[in-house]
Amino acid sequence: MWRITWLLILATTYWQRGHTKGDESPQSPGHVSVVIVGGTGDLAKKYLWQGFFHLYATQVGKGYTFSFYGGGLSPTDKGTPLLFEILKELKCPSELTAERCALVKEQFLRLSQYLQLKTAEDYEKLSQHIQQQLKQEDMVEAGRLFYLSIPAFAYADVAAKINSTCRPPAGAWFRVVLEKPFGHDFESAHLLATQLAGFLKEEEMYRIDHYLGKEVVAQILAFRKKNNNLLEPIWNRHHIERIEIVLKETLDCKGRIQFYDQYGVIRDVLQNHLTEVLTLLLMSIPANISSSEEVLKNKLKVFSSLGHLERNSVVIGQYQKYTEEVQEELNKTKDYFSRTPTFAGVAIFADNPQYDGIPIFMTSGKMLDERVGYARILFKNDIFCIQDSSNVNCKPKQIVFYLGHGGLDYPAILVSKNVFKPSLVNSAWKEVTEHKDISVLGLPLSDYYIQTPAVPREAYYVLINKVFHGRKDSFISADNLLASWAFWTPLLESLVQAFPRPYPGGTANGDLLNFQLRGREVAYVNEAVVNVIQQGQDENFQVMQGKFRGAEMVSAWAKELVERLASDLQSAAEEAVQNEGQFHLALSGGSSPIALFLQLALHHYTFPWHHTHVWLADERCVPPTDAGSNFRTIHDQLLQHVRIPYFNIHPMPVQLNQRLCVEEDGGALLYEKEINQLVNASSFHYVLLGVGQDGHTASLFQDGKLDETGERLVTLTESPVKPHQRMSLTFTAINKARKVGVLVMGKRKHELVTQLSRIKGESAKYPITRVHPTEGGLMWYIDYDALLG
Amino acid sequence: MWRITWLLILATTYWQRGHTKGDESPQSPGHVSVVIVGGTGDLAKKYLWQGFFHLYATQVGKGYTFSFYGGGLSPTDKGTPLLFEILKELKCPSELTAERCALVKEQFLRLSQYLQLKTAEDYEKLSQHIQQQLKQEDMVEAGRLFYLSIPAFAYADVAAKINSTCRPPAGAWFRVVLEKPFGHDFESAHLLATQLAGFLKEEEMYRIDHYLGKEVVAQILAFRKKNNNLLEPIWNRHHIERIEIVLKETLDCKGRIQFYDQYGVIRDVLQNHLTEVLTLLLMSIPANISSSEEVLKNKLKVFSSLGHLERNSVVIGQYQKYTEEVQEELNKTKDYFSRTPTFAGVAIFADNPQYDGIPIFMTSGKMLDERVGYARILFKNDIFCIQDSSNVNCKPKQIVFYLGHGGLDYPAILVSKNVFKPSLVNSAWKEVTEHKDISVLGLPLSDYYIQTPAVPREAYYVLINKVFHGRKDSFISADNLLASWAFWTPLLESLVQAFPRPYPGGTANGDLLNFQLRGREVAYVNEAVVNVIQQGQDENFQVMQGKFRGAEMVSAWAKELVERLASDLQSAAEEAVQNEGQFHLALSGGSSPIALFLQLALHHYTFPWHHTHVWLADERCVPPTDAGSNFRTIHDQLLQHVRIPYFNIHPMPVQLNQRLCVEEDGGALLYEKEINQLVNASSFHYVLLGVGQDGHTASLFQDGKLDETGERLVTLTESPVKPHQRMSLTFTAINKARKVGVLVMGKRKHELVTQLSRIKGESAKYPITRVHPTEGGLMWYIDYDALLG
Repeated sequence: MWRITWLLILATTYWQRGHTKGDESPQSPGHVSVVIVGGTGDLAKKYLWQGFFHLYATQVGKGYTFSFYGGGLSPTDKGTPLLFEILKELKCPSELTAERCALVKEQFLRLSQYLQLKTAEDYEKLSQHIQQQLKQEDMVEAGRLFYLSIPAFAYADVAAKINSTCRPPAGAWFRVVLEKPFGHDFESAHLLATQLAGFLKEEEMYRIDHYLGKEVVAQILAFRKKNNNLLEPIWNRHHIERIEIVLKETLDCKGRIQFYDQYGVIRDVLQNHLTEVLTLLLMSIPANISSSEEVLKNKLKVFSSLGHLERNSVVIGQYQKYTEEVQEELNKTKDYFSRTPTFAGVAIFADNPQYDGIPIFMTSGKMLDERVGYARILFKNDIFCIQDSSNVNCKPKQIVFYLGHGGLDYPAILVSKNVFKPSLVNSAWKEVTEHKDISVLGLPLSDYYIQTPAVPREAYYVLINKVFHGRKDSFISADNLLASWAFWTPLLESLVQAFPRPYPGGTANGDLLNFQLRGREVAYVNEAVVNVIQQGQDENFQVMQGKFRGAEMVSAWAKELVERLASDLQSAAEEAVQNEGQFHLALSGGSSPIALFLQLALHHYTFPWHHTHVWLADERCVPPTDAGSNFRTIHDQLLQHVRIPYFNIHPMPVQLNQRLCVEEDGGALLYEKEINQLVNASSFHYVLLGVGQDGHTASLFQDGKLDETGERLVTLTESPVKPHQRMSLTFTAINKARKVGVLVMGKRKHELVTQLSRIKGESAKYPITRVHPTEGGLMWYIDYDALLG
Repeated sequence: MWRITWLLILATTYWQRGHTKGDESPQSPGHVSVVIVGGTGDLAKKYLWQGFFHLYATQVGKGYTFSFYGGGLSPTDKGTPLLFEILKELKCPSELTAERCALVKEQFLRLSQYLQLKTAEDYEKLSQHIQQQLKQEDMVEAGRLFYLSIPAFAYADVAAKINSTCRPPAGAWFRVVLEKPFGHDFESAHLLATQLAGFLKEEEMYRIDHYLGKEVVAQILAFRKKNNNLLEPIWNRHHIERIEIVLKETLDCKGRIQFYDQYGVIRDVLQNHLTEVLTLLLMSIPANISSSEEVLKNKLKVFSSLGHLERNSVVIGQYQKYTEEVQEELNKTKDYFSRTPTFAGVAIFADNPQYDGIPIFMTSGKMLDERVGYARILFKNDIFCIQDSSNVNCKPKQIVFYLGHGGLDYPAILVSKNVFKPSLVNSAWKEVTEHKDISVLGLPLSDYYIQTPAVPREAYYVLINKVFHGRKDSFISADNLLASWAFWTPLLESLVQAFPRPYPGGTANGDLLNFQLRGREVAYVNEAVVNVIQQGQDENFQVMQGKFRGAEMVSAWAKELVERLASDLQSAAEEAVQNEGQFHLALSGGSSPIALFLQLALHHYTFPWHHTHVWLADERCVPPTDAGSNFRTIHDQLLQHVRIPYFNIHPMPVQLNQRLCVEEDGGALLYEKEINQLVNASSFHYVLLGVGQDGHTASLFQDGKLDETGERLVTLTESPVKPHQRMSLTFTAINKARKVGVLVMGKRKHELVTQLSRIKGESAKYPITRVHPTEGGLMWYIDYDALLG
């Protein structure tokens, strides 16, 4: 709930902030200072210097001049040779001749230097150095680019120093690039974002997710937009069967355990890389796909539509050698076992009309049989092939955003030929027409239209280039980051005590990690086959039947209890419809029934809703659309998900003549008339009640003058808690019902349950004791928490 | 509509009739007379005598005695040798020894004789003969069984004769077996049923569909019931991806054209055989699956849930040689061409919560590449196979009711091993564990659990046996028959002018007959690829834009016009939601908008319903659940199919205090207040209007004192036609709207359109002329029929 609330706050505040549009406007040329903090670290060595060299090679001679600084904690005499070791190895972009390259590289080396960046004074000196150089050479300053290639815990400190010492004078831009991880859950990410916001403006920060620099990922929106006329009609739940977002790795975590064991696969890959791909696939295409504002706005809409993840939305695994690696790298004893998952498979659903019901399988793992990354949109098979079923039209229809590796081994967008012939995303891409004799995701290459970047680019080059041009659309904004953590954090919390399934690694994994949907949850397949079949028996095993206060009682753990109640309700409904053609059901508010409503909506698809009338047992005197309205809860959790005729829905008329529960407006009488008119003998088939800790039921409270209602069916009452005014069925109405179910759940009710069990007959103190339907059909549903404490 | 009405009548009258339960109670032994009318015809020769011989062989010595009569139009001296030619060839049931068989066959021949059955006297004589024989041998009569193996046109005549002369005395049963065709559309079937009902009681008639005697078909219900605990959870739209009901034939129609050309494949196979399979798959399992009443009741429920079939629900084909065959057998000239389809593929949908959205492909054809019949339930692929994808769990999940022929060549029920291990339907079936090395519907046999009858039985034997035992559950009742014709007749009527696609026959058909879904319609695939893509352009091509009465006008054929209006409405809705967060739409009643509602419900899944408020432009003063209520139409055709919040639905309050449109109840004022309260400036975003032939719009009529409403938004009005009382938005309310669309369709409106085009400005005679929204957003949608006549 907090997540949704938070998203709402975010959505409403978003447009109130002063988002500057300047980040995408063309910038003036001049001198640019690039500072890689952590300039001799692994990432810098592997990608960053190469990226900046590439940038330099393409930008030199276009009006810009550059200086490059590699900063580190070591003193200059130690750091300088380290830096030049790295720079020596730089490779030339393929578009340069060897001769030109040698020249450019020589220039680049001359413009680059190592600096110790440890204390505030070091940063101060750096800034002075930049200013002096500008002055000496009489250059205009275009901007300063800081790339923080350092551990996240150092971000705030470094950002503070840069902020206080290294800001350029007005007129020049100031950009700070940050690398993940950005926190390890919603709270820590929020804290970090708040800290950084104290030193840097949001528009100055470029949070990198290098997946957004991968060329295929970077072109997802462009591809969707370019082919929109063909895609739009099929890009929805009516045509898409499933979406798969997959990153399979063959490597283990050796050497990275220190980091990895604190994060695990969900934080390392799913929360960021794969979630970014997800939002790009699902978001509405903004009018301007280069506008970071529009992209962000639409991404946030995707997040707010994603269904809540729970423990059973995921399967997790851990490769068997991981334990050993942890013990070694973290210096643990031989009995130490880490629960960090190295494999996860998640089913995500988007609760909106366009994608509702499409399972989105997101999965990643270490030590799998193959290294490959892709996002696949599989369309429904809408063809009936009466003959010639090897025809391409009879095969799977799919679009694959192939990130690389695997059998194909180059990044590409593949569209199976039975979908349509797509346009190239842009002129820098080319069509592939000569095909290796391999299959990709079930289809031979020749069954696809394939497009790929004409000249492959490293993700870091792409992103560095975008930072340089101030293109923020490929970076993670704070809002985006927090929305993603808000989505993943409840799942991560639910996994704290969970044991991952061990797997041997490589092809030996066999089908151990294959997983399947069960409703909206997932489970490993090779358990599931057995479990699904035995579900019926399992349930019974945990359900206990007995007596409570002289009436029937069912008790079980909450989940099984709700399943049992739902199933009893369905039986009652079927019986009533069979005999009388309709089923009159009165429902209560409160939180306990929500689980029941979801159970009915998601699992009881044969429930005879078409012949069911839904009544309210009680209502708060608030407008029906108010979040506190019982009807609103029933509406949102149940009625919106089933096909029930409008005429069969009977909210209590608490609002008449634009005012709430005024005696003269006669709302209670109106409802009573409606009951008399529609319900045979005013006897509901089923009344579902809860009970409050104070013993009240429906809205019938201890001091509610309950004896004055006589033969009335509906009455206005007073609650001791807000909102005080209520409308409620009377005991007369309740006790006329054929069946009454009382649902009692949670430890908080244990004391009440104990007391109720000791009271014989009615007690004025506990209104619930006055429920005893004349036909005798009372059933208590009490969960173990309430029963046993 | 007439079909639905008819089904309602049928459903309500069904239980009022005196259905005797006696047809299933055990019968007393005694003498049984069997009369095959048409006893030397093809069917009798091929199946019937063999069936009765088999019956005799199993029943002899169990207390019954028998006489068998083969009746025909030829005189006795000609018929007798013909009959004995047939009887000589009879084969023994496999359970008899050769010795025993010879004995039984000799007895059977002695008990069988040929009779001329032409005139009423012939039947009279037959009856006397039976009575005499009974008397002579002092036998008690158990019953008389007449098998009418004659052309349908002779049914009524023969039934009349049998009725007046051959009824047994009280105490003995009387059964008449009939063979299809039972009519060739709803009307002729109804006529035939009425005629027959004049002579025979429904419980005396056994209408044969020999598919119901096929052992696999006969066991569908038993299989579903036996495995219900495993099937029930997955036998619904959440798990079933599609259902296929298929009968492929390799033969042509040569020699049968006289019959075939009048019927075609839909009447010959789909309306009866395949539809019976369909109902057995979809019906709720009755508590007693042998009770013909319960089976019928549940079958009828299936029919009432099936979606209406239209021209585009089907693709049809005709093998190329058919033309030649027709010319030859019907003595036609070389330019004669028959439109009778020899191939048909249909997509059927059941509009109920259990099966909603599952495409049911039903298809049959002559001269295809293979002879095979099956019904296949393919389940959704709910598995994500991250590795080891050749594992059985990663393959298609399906249940196949295999009727015979094809690769497997024996009847069987196959359940893929990743679904579950089914129980045997009964003790007369066995499990098949040795597998031929073939694939059935995409899976090798070893991936299936297979069960098959231990001893295969001919369908006619099974059915004759059931007639003998009075088991009516495997026969077609009149209600069932008429429900099926009611379902198929509109499709057949829509095909009268349709040209089937020619196909060469056999493997040369290639993919010519493969078809695919487009929404709920179907089309041949190898056109569709192109068409789907170009749909957008095609539409525009047929839509014309112009001016009408000084306002914008769009004109097109009805289908394209409705598509355009729906798409304009969606744009208006999206714009309003984008700008104001909600869309206020006022809808009119009448028949024209129904097509629009369906278009919106079925094709506009991204319509922002969640933020749309639906208001009524006018309403008839009838209860809201009345079939004549505008709201009822909007509810059933639109609101029940989209997810729109209850709070956003605003029916006009025509019923208050349990009475209709009484001025003092203030319904109009109440609605006006609701509009003022919710709609910004009381200005609807869109008002959709129609126009009557008399020029009225909404419920604003010529003499309706329309000028007295002043600034009122809602008023009570009087219609010249019933129901006279109406509630309506006023011109004030309509002209305040941002956009107003007027939809005019059909030839009946042509005259009005012509007149309207000649009138300048307002005319008191034509209320529609007073619609001119102050913001100017008026758009006419006029179809070509209304525009051009």
